[in-house]
Amino acid sequence: MVYQLYYWPTIQGRGEFVRLALEEASAEYVDVARQKNGVSKMLAVLGAATPAAFAPPVLMAGELAIGQSANILLYLGARHGLAPRTEEGRLWTHQLQLTIADLVNEVHDTHHPVAVSLYYEDQKKEAKRRAAEFLANRVPKFLDYFERVLREPSRRGGFMVASRLSYVDLSMFQLLEGLRYAFPRSMARIEPGYPGLVDLHGRIAARPNIAAYLASKRRIPFNEEGIFRHYPELDK
Amino acid sequence: MVYQLYYWPTIQGRGEFVRLALEEASAEYVDVARQKNGVSKMLAVLGAATPAAFAPPVLMAGELAIGQSANILLYLGARHGLAPRTEEGRLWTHQLQLTIADLVNEVHDTHHPVAVSLYYEDQKKEAKRRAAEFLANRVPKFLDYFERVLREPSRRGGFMVASRLSYVDLSMFQLLEGLRYAFPRSMARIEPGYPGLVDLHGRIAARPNIAAYLASKRRIPFNEEGIFRHYPELDK
Repeated sequence: MVYQLYYWPTIQGRGEFVRLALEEASAEYVDVARQKNGVSKMLAVLGAATPAAFAPPVLMAGELAIGQSANILLYLGARHGLAPRTEEGRLWTHQLQLTIADLVNEVHDTHHPVAVSLYYEDQKKEAKRRAAEFLANRVPKFLDYFERVLREPSRRGGFMVASRLSYVDLSMFQLLEGLRYAFPRSMARIEPGYPGLVDLHGRIAARPNIAAYLASKRRIPFNEEGIFRHYPELDK
Repeated sequence: MVYQLYYWPTIQGRGEFVRLALEEASAEYVDVARQKNGVSKMLAVLGAATPAAFAPPVLMAGELAIGQSANILLYLGARHGLAPRTEEGRLWTHQLQLTIADLVNEVHDTHHPVAVSLYYEDQKKEAKRRAAEFLANRVPKFLDYFERVLREPSRRGGFMVASRLSYVDLSMFQLLEGLRYAFPRSMARIEPGYPGLVDLHGRIAARPNIAAYLASKRRIPFNEEGIFRHYPELDK
């Protein structure tokens, strides 16, 4: 089966968590909106009488249409060995993914604290306040938690969930990668406190499928339209 | 099995979506933090060397500890007939729940657009801007979507997912109830556009187990510590 991924064609965004899982799994997929007339096709799927989802990404797997990044990963994890097989392991993996998604939402709101419908320039003052709080309090709180999860003895195996790679490890890579892009100065200061996560990031980047993907044109560069945006004034 | 729910004892918050599912299912549960020394017990679970979750709620089901509201509902839905049995139905139900969770996050940020670590009074100006945008653009966008899902012919059965009650219907009730509490003036204006959702809300409130719960002391009243807060200046 060839998956069809519907996501914005010019940003990594929330679709990137799905792309990384598909790439690691060597799954066949078409990134539909990056093809000719692809955005129209994506908007048709979202605007149908029975809308497939409130917002992209949507993954089509045969007849099945799945929305919400974490939900798509729940599905892919079970099919491609990217999550434990037990119910307990599956729920724990998904819980970690939802916690990453919470932090990703907070990253987004550093540059859009007032409204997604307004330009960044129209909420820059609020963004400065929010980003400062985010970097001082929220990033350390989340990374403390993730580092503890990674290093907890009974779960130790070098990965977030037990001793095997899961989609959470791929998302953790993307999270650190994005935070580094958006807040290089702050992350240079914050990162040394999280050696386990930094090491995990490096190991994920070096996996053959991920390294090949990152070096390919399929990987869209970070930019100031996505979730992780580099505005130097927010990175003091 | 008697479930143990760990959540803040003085607010509905995100725990309320779980409480409503437990109540509808007539599941036996202890709302731990509302018992004597219960908050200490909750903080111990969250602060353990192996933290059960980044934040409450946590549901203990025997040896299993589950965090993230939507993840807890994924688990309860399968066990108590509050979600379809097919994979497709289960994923679709969870997708809708995650979309409700996205809107709940946005509700929270109407009164805390800058930082959870600051008082409302210290971000009131930003809150006014954010709440105005939220009510003008975001609430209608989400409710349009949910109304379309509810009324879509092939899924019609009076519930959000096909013809049977699911945990999403309970959460939709809570969402409307909370929006009405927080923004009574705005919702009086907005609601008539969503007759399906309003009707669903009424039917859920009238279900015997839910009605009994809402009339009991187990239902914590809305207040200005939770997610849905009534600040008249945000409800123009």
